[in-house]
Amino acid sequence: MNGKKLHCGIIGAGRIGRVHAETLAFRLPESQLLAIADLNREAAQAVAARCNIPKVAASPTEIIADPEIDAVLICSPTATHVDLIVQAAQAGKHIFCEKPIAFSLQKIDDALAAVNTAGVLLQIGFNRRFDANFVRVRQAVASGEIGVPNLLHIVSRDPAPPPLSYIRSSGGIFLDMTIHDFDMARFLVGDEVEEIYTAGGVMVDPAIGEAGDLDTALVVLRFRNGVIGTIDNSRKAVYGYDQRVEVFGSKGKIATENVYPNQATISTCKSVSTDLPLNFFMERYTESFVLELQAFIQAVIEQRPTPVSGMDGRIPVVMALAARKSFDEHRPVRLEEISA
Amino acid sequence: MNGKKLHCGIIGAGRIGRVHAETLAFRLPESQLLAIADLNREAAQAVAARCNIPKVAASPTEIIADPEIDAVLICSPTATHVDLIVQAAQAGKHIFCEKPIAFSLQKIDDALAAVNTAGVLLQIGFNRRFDANFVRVRQAVASGEIGVPNLLHIVSRDPAPPPLSYIRSSGGIFLDMTIHDFDMARFLVGDEVEEIYTAGGVMVDPAIGEAGDLDTALVVLRFRNGVIGTIDNSRKAVYGYDQRVEVFGSKGKIATENVYPNQATISTCKSVSTDLPLNFFMERYTESFVLELQAFIQAVIEQRPTPVSGMDGRIPVVMALAARKSFDEHRPVRLEEISA
Amino acid sequence: MNGKKLHCGIIGAGRIGRVHAETLAFRLPESQLLAIADLNREAAQAVAARCNIPKVAASPTEIIADPEIDAVLICSPTATHVDLIVQAAQAGKHIFCEKPIAFSLQKIDDALAAVNTAGVLLQIGFNRRFDANFVRVRQAVASGEIGVPNLLHIVSRDPAPPPLSYIRSSGGIFLDMTIHDFDMARFLVGDEVEEIYTAGGVMVDPAIGEAGDLDTALVVLRFRNGVIGTIDNSRKAVYGYDQRVEVFGSKGKIATENVYPNQATISTCKSVSTDLPLNFFMERYTESFVLELQAFIQAVIEQRPTPVSGMDGRIPVVMALAARKSFDEHRPVRLEEISA
Amino acid sequence: MNGKKLHCGIIGAGRIGRVHAETLAFRLPESQLLAIADLNREAAQAVAARCNIPKVAASPTEIIADPEIDAVLICSPTATHVDLIVQAAQAGKHIFCEKPIAFSLQKIDDALAAVNTAGVLLQIGFNRRFDANFVRVRQAVASGEIGVPNLLHIVSRDPAPPPLSYIRSSGGIFLDMTIHDFDMARFLVGDEVEEIYTAGGVMVDPAIGEAGDLDTALVVLRFRNGVIGTIDNSRKAVYGYDQRVEVFGSKGKIATENVYPNQATISTCKSVSTDLPLNFFMERYTESFVLELQAFIQAVIEQRPTPVSGMDGRIPVVMALAARKSFDEHRPVRLEEISA
Repeated sequence: MNGKKLHCGIIGAGRIGRVHAETLAFRLPESQLLAIADLNREAAQAVAARCNIPKVAASPTEIIADPEIDAVLICSPTATHVDLIVQAAQAGKHIFCEKPIAFSLQKIDDALAAVNTAGVLLQIGFNRRFDANFVRVRQAVASGEIGVPNLLHIVSRDPAPPPLSYIRSSGGIFLDMTIHDFDMARFLVGDEVEEIYTAGGVMVDPAIGEAGDLDTALVVLRFRNGVIGTIDNSRKAVYGYDQRVEVFGSKGKIATENVYPNQATISTCKSVSTDLPLNFFMERYTESFVLELQAFIQAVIEQRPTPVSGMDGRIPVVMALAARKSFDEHRPVRLEEISA
Repeated sequence: MNGKKLHCGIIGAGRIGRVHAETLAFRLPESQLLAIADLNREAAQAVAARCNIPKVAASPTEIIADPEIDAVLICSPTATHVDLIVQAAQAGKHIFCEKPIAFSLQKIDDALAAVNTAGVLLQIGFNRRFDANFVRVRQAVASGEIGVPNLLHIVSRDPAPPPLSYIRSSGGIFLDMTIHDFDMARFLVGDEVEEIYTAGGVMVDPAIGEAGDLDTALVVLRFRNGVIGTIDNSRKAVYGYDQRVEVFGSKGKIATENVYPNQATISTCKSVSTDLPLNFFMERYTESFVLELQAFIQAVIEQRPTPVSGMDGRIPVVMALAARKSFDEHRPVRLEEISA
Repeated sequence: MNGKKLHCGIIGAGRIGRVHAETLAFRLPESQLLAIADLNREAAQAVAARCNIPKVAASPTEIIADPEIDAVLICSPTATHVDLIVQAAQAGKHIFCEKPIAFSLQKIDDALAAVNTAGVLLQIGFNRRFDANFVRVRQAVASGEIGVPNLLHIVSRDPAPPPLSYIRSSGGIFLDMTIHDFDMARFLVGDEVEEIYTAGGVMVDPAIGEAGDLDTALVVLRFRNGVIGTIDNSRKAVYGYDQRVEVFGSKGKIATENVYPNQATISTCKSVSTDLPLNFFMERYTESFVLELQAFIQAVIEQRPTPVSGMDGRIPVVMALAARKSFDEHRPVRLEEISA
Repeated sequence: MNGKKLHCGIIGAGRIGRVHAETLAFRLPESQLLAIADLNREAAQAVAARCNIPKVAASPTEIIADPEIDAVLICSPTATHVDLIVQAAQAGKHIFCEKPIAFSLQKIDDALAAVNTAGVLLQIGFNRRFDANFVRVRQAVASGEIGVPNLLHIVSRDPAPPPLSYIRSSGGIFLDMTIHDFDMARFLVGDEVEEIYTAGGVMVDPAIGEAGDLDTALVVLRFRNGVIGTIDNSRKAVYGYDQRVEVFGSKGKIATENVYPNQATISTCKSVSTDLPLNFFMERYTESFVLELQAFIQAVIEQRPTPVSGMDGRIPVVMALAARKSFDEHRPVRLEEISA
């Protein structure tokens, strides 16, 4: 490693790239951001200016080749992830990569093989694992506070669907949206899913259906340890971003509520009400973005496994493929049916 | 009808029979309770004494034959329901019958045919429809307050499993426990289910599994109108009776919380806590037992349809049979596959 | 006593008289209601018909003189309380009397002396002591669950002011409305107040001010044991009946919320809301009216002290007089300054 | 001003100085931190290293004299505030000063006069005005959402008393702790208090009483516009930092709850509970420290009045003196009785 601070480069200056750049620049003094690259050079320059990044690289390759850089953050579109992971691994860089690694298991396996061969560290951007609510739920399960878990429920509804153009290239709701919940399910229960059953439909916008996707889904998970879970997804919750989980076990349950911009309740002659919950994942999960990078940097500095491994990136993709297959074939699908 | 008050007889002086007797005696002045019968004559006498019922009948038949009686409440074991319904209908009595009507669709159809032929009124004891929480949710759906419904969740967990002896003769969790939730699902959504998928297991007590039953179940409902619903059942929630629903729609969601014995919150150096929710269905649903009888009596007095018809009693049994079939065959089952 | 059931007579067939009549008739089998009287004979007849009371007495005196009657419930206007208490005591009847006993301490003392001389039992109608929320708070204080109490807050706001005609004869806000809170303060803390400071104003309706009364008040209580308390009163809370308390102590706090008609929360694009709290004291305190009478009847049957004694009726009147004096003289007033 | 970024110097590298340094360094790119000074040079150096501050000044005077510096943040002990304000004003620096300005009105007036003469901007560090909860309450009052305000309640309890050494030099509870609540009261109601009545005691630790101070206080405020308010202070709430307000008005009420580290609820066989609220003002008010500095910097850059003026710093001191006088003299005290 280059000195006491971890030297980082960022590939991708879009929304999430900017968030990570700001985190590294302003919140994590144990890191130093040396370079950023983006096909949209202006975007990269804007982030560099805001975050005091000394270099705007001409290409991802330039960042990956920079001997001063210890770790790269891959925040570019999904289709580029695997190539960049392979290059970065071969260059001996530690890697933080946004989810999903890829839509194809074969490509994911290529990436993981390269990481494995190179012996570098890889962390996947499942930031929600670092959210205070879900950390607390995991802790309750892991510590036995609620006994042996029996049932899990995840509600994960977006405030509004993304543009159709995005949906068309998103890989579908399961790879784009539910994938976070698949990861959450594994994280909270601490075990693997072996079978998935999916019910779903097009209830928000017929155009999403015409694009071959669903906008509403109910996924049932059966874990190896017997736990039964559900994931409830909708592309449109008019009241805002709805992100809740509940785990029920032999000694109790733990359930989380949404996060609100304030803790005020207003009583009038019409109702007792609060303002709407936080509406946007960037606000709702702000702190988790900081914590996931902090964990990555710590893992690299201390040379120990990252908290969200390459396999943690692969398995939710398998689950997404199984969920879609279940929907298409209208039957429960075992994960072992899905192969690279 | 005999005079201005509705004259009633009760068959069965067990737990629910006693509740209904007290309701008629002390809460509903528009009714008058003339007789009660139970195989356990002492039980019938005790209820009669407490509720000022003038006659302890020697048998159900004596009640059904009594010309002074306008309506009978059938609160005896499930196995006796159909015969009593048929007898009562033939005698021209209006009938309030506890759920389920029977475990066999053929027998249910016999009962409904007798009721239909006789032209008497029949109400099934799905009391939860009269609970203030669920009434409020139904109102939100029916009025369009939350738009077009998309997703429904019912959590219905008992504080503790019944004795094994009860479980063995209960017809199984779907006919004994989930049946209330099947009714609730239809009531809240206002439409019919066409397909059911069941996941479940034995997580509470292996002895329940040895008795051929489940103690934990997750049932997925697909309604004709596209709504997807889940029912979450457990025989054992250590924190008490857990009865919640949520309906999510195009304009919002409505969700209910459990009912608590008080509205106090205690903050100490360890936690911020409340007492446990009401632990027992008799406490939790007290008021609904009054309101269902009031609705029955009103329907009879005004000679209009009861709010929970014979078909409302039949369909949840079909759903229970489909749920079990789905579990056994490990696939989604359409309700039309279930026949008498 | 006359037989195993307590024989009661009710004086006053107004709102609260009717509530008590229904309670005795339908909820408390250990009592029997023999007679009712009211200047408005029609009102008495209506209640008698509804509650199966065999006799409508021509006057309170007729009830008090009835040898079959063990106990009388005095539900007539405040101005009549003392005379009726004295008469009933002299006739050897046990007495349940609505609050306040009287507006004059001298008259109250006359009543208490008569009760004392006769050796009959007297209970004052401070029903809120029997409300599940306040019982829970008292229990937390008495058991030491929140340690030594330091601070107490009572919020007690009515949904709307009573008619001006009522206000003019009410004795003023402190004797009419705050008196319940004075009792609650003593009940919750379990100690006596020694000094009162009052701030207040006319914020709801100028006509109330013109009638010489306040409609908004903030009363500070200093207890002998050092606890400092506040009472917050308003005649008009547009969102409904607002009845909350909080006790803060060395080991924690306990606070109660309002009571709602249902436990549903509705989320829309505008807000997350619930329906308004119960709006009327009859709904909010329904169960407490039953429990206070049950306690009275039990006390009489078992010949032990009632839970709300004559002194419990006198002290809040002293407090009300002190509160008014504090407001008039704009200074803290010690209760010992108030004499009969 | 020096260039497009506001150049700042910080005087005081204690707890709050460090917080402000980090905010300027990492959260507010519109500012640049040039120098820091502290009697404890090591402390200053540590903050400088962490926050990339180029200079550790030998004394406050060196910072005030630095022509590159536009604004100084005074985070040193209260006793030094006035001298530093006067010096800084005379040097033409804009000033952010922690609360309270001073314990003596005469000295405060000297400071304000110097600021006034110099024409510089001054902001006092009442950070809670920038907390999302209290901003929301103020907005509800200012917009008329709850109508004309009638009653105000502020609960402000610390998790544990500070060391006795601190208490001895703190100026007493009213100048040290309640002063925040006096500011909050004025901010929320948007009007001035004209009279104060104080009840209080020593309930937490007798040593605090021996030091001549109170540890528990209940302050009643009467505003010019008729609003009546209370402030409830305790030095020790075992369940954590308790910071709530409620405003009740002619069209409703708005009330805030505490802030929690997560939104999880755990139900077990003993209780339904949550973790404790945030325990420390630094966690509870984190965001408000950022927002107050942002507002200060914006005001300076745009040369418009700061949101918390010098008079906003003076008036709470008057209120604190009145509160203490009321406690000592056991009577309501008008603010006009307090003079410099």
